Amino acid sequence: MTTVLPEPAPLRSLIDALKRLPGVGERTARRMAYHLLQHDLQGAEQLGMALQQAVHELQRCTRCNGLSEDDICALCASPQRDSSLLCVVETPADQNMIEASHGYQGLYYVLMGRLAPIEGVGPAALQLEKLMARAADPEVKEVILATNFTSEGETTAHHLSELLGRRGVRLTRLARGVPAGSELEYVDASTIAWALHERKNA
Amino acid sequence: MTTVLPEPAPLRSLIDALKRLPGVGERTARRMAYHLLQHDLQGAEQLGMALQQAVHELQRCTRCNGLSEDDICALCASPQRDSSLLCVVETPADQNMIEASHGYQGLYYVLMGRLAPIEGVGPAALQLEKLMARAADPEVKEVILATNFTSEGETTAHHLSELLGRRGVRLTRLARGVPAGSELEYVDASTIAWALHERKNA
Repeated sequence: MTTVLPEPAPLRSLIDALKRLPGVGERTARRMAYHLLQHDLQGAEQLGMALQQAVHELQRCTRCNGLSEDDICALCASPQRDSSLLCVVETPADQNMIEASHGYQGLYYVLMGRLAPIEGVGPAALQLEKLMARAADPEVKEVILATNFTSEGETTAHHLSELLGRRGVRLTRLARGVPAGSELEYVDASTIAWALHERKNA
Repeated sequence: MTTVLPEPAPLRSLIDALKRLPGVGERTARRMAYHLLQHDLQGAEQLGMALQQAVHELQRCTRCNGLSEDDICALCASPQRDSSLLCVVETPADQNMIEASHGYQGLYYVLMGRLAPIEGVGPAALQLEKLMARAADPEVKEVILATNFTSEGETTAHHLSELLGRRGVRLTRLARGVPAGSELEYVDASTIAWALHERKNA
């Protein structure tokens, strides 16, 4: 959208700042800015404060690398979790999905990213030495590599299995196969191929 | 997305605040929050400050009701604009589109909304008395009702023409017709009907 109006500077700054949100371009940012300024000044103020607060009050959990208000997050500090299992995920969103499955009682390590050589994200950017130190805890008996089944996620899992393989810890990866509740007709061919390859005794 | 993790309070507040943006639900808000906190802390801070600044530094222009840093916005203050023309638009975005057309040299009045009885937006909520006062300026010879051609926009234009009609000022509405550069085959039937009804001598 071409802008011809002499635009007030604070409006321009707000639109530029909104464009830093993922998936938000000029037009959406402008719509968001107008919405807040026209209809929800209170929401604008609330969002402004929440951002400042999140930036200043959230830190990385020293054990799992996830977001936490304290040095050690509530999940890592919980005595109910099985400390022999360490599940490595890319993001807090992935961790959240695994928690929602109610199928896991161990601990986590959150990479906060994945290896993506094309985007210049190498092992150094991911601070993998922090994971190495965490996995060196003698309580940890198994590391589950739960990175995504995308090419970046697979690359990351491969790299991690090389690094961790030397430590003598058991390494596993989430099972690949046909999604629960799905009909074969609508499942993509490579998933079917994996499901065949990793078939189990009935 | 079900949340099972004990979530840090500042993260939860940030997600809730992001949900006040138009078109942003729980999942998108969560993705935005993680993005800012993982990859763009500086962007989060910038957005937080831009919001505070916009809320506190922007006000309504006393002449056109649009967003402005000063009592009177740059456009209303410009001596280059034709003060005999007043174009009434619903939003700053609409004003921006008209400016981008380079087809208008007059002044504006920004309603910051439209009549929408179903949503409870009546004449009082739009503060139409401010427009009445502005249109009463003896310099104004013509008011162009440039509200949208939606049912709310049409309702608004109709209501405004009733209010302003008593003042003896010339009232006009944007022309309806076939969009520039378009092929009739792809234009909707009601637009064609309007274009026929308002046909001009060639």
